[in-house]
Amino acid sequence: MILTVTLNAALDVTYGVEAVVPHATHRVERVIRRAGGKGLNVSRVLHQLGHDTVVTGIAGGRTGAEIRADLDRAGIEHRLLDRGEARTSVSVVDAADATVFNEPGPTLGEDDWAAFLSVYDDAVTRAACVVLSGSLPPGLPVDAYARLCARTSVPCLVDAGGPALVAAARAGAAVLLPNEAELREATGLEDPAAGARALLELGAGAVVVSRGAEGLLAFHGTESWRAPAPERLVGNPTGAGDALAAAVAATTGSPWPDRLREALAWSAAAVPAPAAGDVDVPTLQRIRAAATIERLETPCP
Amino acid sequence: MILTVTLNAALDVTYGVEAVVPHATHRVERVIRRAGGKGLNVSRVLHQLGHDTVVTGIAGGRTGAEIRADLDRAGIEHRLLDRGEARTSVSVVDAADATVFNEPGPTLGEDDWAAFLSVYDDAVTRAACVVLSGSLPPGLPVDAYARLCARTSVPCLVDAGGPALVAAARAGAAVLLPNEAELREATGLEDPAAGARALLELGAGAVVVSRGAEGLLAFHGTESWRAPAPERLVGNPTGAGDALAAAVAATTGSPWPDRLREALAWSAAAVPAPAAGDVDVPTLQRIRAAATIERLETPCP
Repeated sequence: MILTVTLNAALDVTYGVEAVVPHATHRVERVIRRAGGKGLNVSRVLHQLGHDTVVTGIAGGRTGAEIRADLDRAGIEHRLLDRGEARTSVSVVDAADATVFNEPGPTLGEDDWAAFLSVYDDAVTRAACVVLSGSLPPGLPVDAYARLCARTSVPCLVDAGGPALVAAARAGAAVLLPNEAELREATGLEDPAAGARALLELGAGAVVVSRGAEGLLAFHGTESWRAPAPERLVGNPTGAGDALAAAVAATTGSPWPDRLREALAWSAAAVPAPAAGDVDVPTLQRIRAAATIERLETPCP
Repeated sequence: MILTVTLNAALDVTYGVEAVVPHATHRVERVIRRAGGKGLNVSRVLHQLGHDTVVTGIAGGRTGAEIRADLDRAGIEHRLLDRGEARTSVSVVDAADATVFNEPGPTLGEDDWAAFLSVYDDAVTRAACVVLSGSLPPGLPVDAYARLCARTSVPCLVDAGGPALVAAARAGAAVLLPNEAELREATGLEDPAAGARALLELGAGAVVVSRGAEGLLAFHGTESWRAPAPERLVGNPTGAGDALAAAVAATTGSPWPDRLREALAWSAAAVPAPAAGDVDVPTLQRIRAAATIERLETPCP
């Protein structure tokens, strides 16, 4: 079972409008309400593709109850702590693009963190691997993911930026999943290879760097690979990082070139899918077949 | 007791952001969640100024429960039918103004309407006057306000536009409260006096026309009055119409010049108030003292 952690679970509300105009009043034509948050979307992708997954994290109050009810409808198992009032994220979609309003989430304290740790320790006993991703609600420790890695014996995958990424590397996360900008910001290094190697030096097991439409890079030990995108896809890239994390988690134990091929295919398949947490299976199969994984030269030590 | 009817009660969510930019992702800095809907805001004003009021209408599901809980916190009595899932209205406020996204509300049917009528018939027995205002959820009869007027023996005040306004006039509403644009749209007449007289002809007891910063007009029988705004106010005029309805309801039985003075003062006092449903009492007292109510010439028959 793959356990995903969403400490700042959200209710994702999507509004369909004709056109977003600042300071105007808009008649909302369509409303979609759906449980969201990055870890939760990783579980959605895993569930869609037949992998056993459990969602844990924090989702409190009335909004938390709506998040749980939506996961029940989707048939996804969950162990979510009921603390605070879970945030809502509003995406207003018009013909051109989405305009997004992200609430910060509830302010939590040490008691909430302690209560979550006991939920986590219980859920993780059945897990083969853990995915930690998404934002933290205000008040939780900045190094929450590192602390969870440190108390976990199975591989931990971390999709985070900034100080959380560096702390997770130090705590020995099995795989870090930054995008290029997050990697640059966290390490201060322009070159993604140099940044990834800095995180490996700190203690990370492997680093997979997503470069948007350019494809992926993976670094493990002294080896590294490049997976260029075989085609340009049209759609919404919001859920691509979550599908990538799902693929890397689902292929735990496989050789890195195989994992990277799946990561490229799953993340590409999120782009034409209607919502974050969904993948388009024909796209997944097409990209998996078309992908070429190139081994990169090992730099001199 | 003044009964207010809100058939499409809403949860009003206000997001504070730096600046609304179409197709960007916004970090929401402040979140305010509050029960809303026009009738409900009429009751808020009445309650603030010490008048006995009860909220009735329809507010279903989880959002309905949050609306009830907020009314409980405010100490406002309510009899809201739990059908459908109540709508949310999102206002994104930046330094310049508010950008509003209004959900349409739940789609209701004949069963829901019948169930509401029994809640209404029970609540109205204690009422001295009824205020009917705001939008209707999809699926309810377009002439819902007219039908409620027709079954009510105490005075009904109706704040609505379009066909609902004309139907309420035909059903003998005691007071209609259109703004200038609604009056023009409903009657097809450019001149507000001509439009108001057309509604009186149809059966309305009186018509109060709000003209924004220009003040108010009132028409009753063959008499009419003008209440010009004594000063320009800075703030948010969103709740001014609800405060106006509250004043006209609270002064039921008083001479029209007195009612118009209160209506002008209460509606003006909503402009500097922080949220719809609040009034600024010093402003109310200042405008009440400064208001001049002018009797207009009666046109030849």
